[in-house]
Amino acid sequence: MSHEILPEPTLRRLPWYLAYVSLLHSRGVEYVSSTAIARELNVDASQIAKDLSFLSIRGKTRIGYEVAELEKELKDFLGFDSRHNAVIMGVGSLGAALISDSGLARYGLNVVAGFDVNPRLIGSTINGIPVFSPEELPERREEFNAEIGIITVPVEVAQGVADDMVAAGIRALWNFTPVRIRTAEGIAIENTSIYAHLAVMYNRLDDLRGYRK
Amino acid sequence: MSHEILPEPTLRRLPWYLAYVSLLHSRGVEYVSSTAIARELNVDASQIAKDLSFLSIRGKTRIGYEVAELEKELKDFLGFDSRHNAVIMGVGSLGAALISDSGLARYGLNVVAGFDVNPRLIGSTINGIPVFSPEELPERREEFNAEIGIITVPVEVAQGVADDMVAAGIRALWNFTPVRIRTAEGIAIENTSIYAHLAVMYNRLDDLRGYRK
Repeated sequence: MSHEILPEPTLRRLPWYLAYVSLLHSRGVEYVSSTAIARELNVDASQIAKDLSFLSIRGKTRIGYEVAELEKELKDFLGFDSRHNAVIMGVGSLGAALISDSGLARYGLNVVAGFDVNPRLIGSTINGIPVFSPEELPERREEFNAEIGIITVPVEVAQGVADDMVAAGIRALWNFTPVRIRTAEGIAIENTSIYAHLAVMYNRLDDLRGYRK
Repeated sequence: MSHEILPEPTLRRLPWYLAYVSLLHSRGVEYVSSTAIARELNVDASQIAKDLSFLSIRGKTRIGYEVAELEKELKDFLGFDSRHNAVIMGVGSLGAALISDSGLARYGLNVVAGFDVNPRLIGSTINGIPVFSPEELPERREEFNAEIGIITVPVEVAQGVADDMVAAGIRALWNFTPVRIRTAEGIAIENTSIYAHLAVMYNRLDDLRGYRK
């Protein structure tokens, strides 16, 4: 199995399958076919079989996949069963909210430290996680062995923070700002622009209102 | 200007332009060309001009767009200058985090009420926002005139919650669960699967490690 050839659309669908399979598991269901997953998730059954072929699990003819095994394989494949240490830059409103979200830990993300320029936050802890001055980023990143850097700072400083994180040894940036972060090759960037999602939703609402006219 | 013909990729890029233009505004820059935006955001200049043609603003030859006007137009067009009332179902870890994020209000989202089955939460307030029993959803939705429903419940109950919200008059669902929500036509659904983004990031980190070998 090679990660290199895994198509990103597959990677984005696998968590849907995991959510459904976990649900079946909690209900005591033992086997599930790709046809059944297809019906539930509105994805083509052949697509599902193809996506799942990247895992080291095989379905049985007429029975399908063993639910508990498929759940375990998906969690493992997606990295949710491993611990990934992360630091978070900017523990204002959204940053503090993310630190307080225990869901991240359930999906393998272990936030080990926060950083903020606000002197009132430096030295405090949020949800048990210490907050440091950004100046301490290089040494703390190394101390906590963090590979992931979460960016929840104001847009004006987002690019600078990204540069500092990469210089400090961060290998992957999870960017919550609407800024298009630029880095050298060899750094992973994942953008989660929740405010951009709002714009899409508002627009669709407007369209729906138009249709009703 | 018609929202109906606005391509979704355009809609997803506009918030990037807004972030950059706001930054220029805060720095006192008066004019910006699509070429300058292109250079900064690594998007084709002709694409930017095309995207901005959906707004009721025109750039001037050789000078470009007036920064303050472009910022205002973008905010208005994206709906960030309006108030959109929303209720949130599930004020556990992620839900409570979202309620506490004042950034949402800055982007036009006005969370008016939360709902949770946890008796210890019912009757409390989080960040000044009241938490009710889900039984009160229909009357409270109407009382607060909320069109948007945010879903931050466990996967097992996500579809049921979506159904309840639509039955109560919600027109747009912002789904933070990895569940593929199904609804009737005429309901907008926006999925923000932050945990799926984690999987993508972990995978890229694995790839980067592979490259270094």
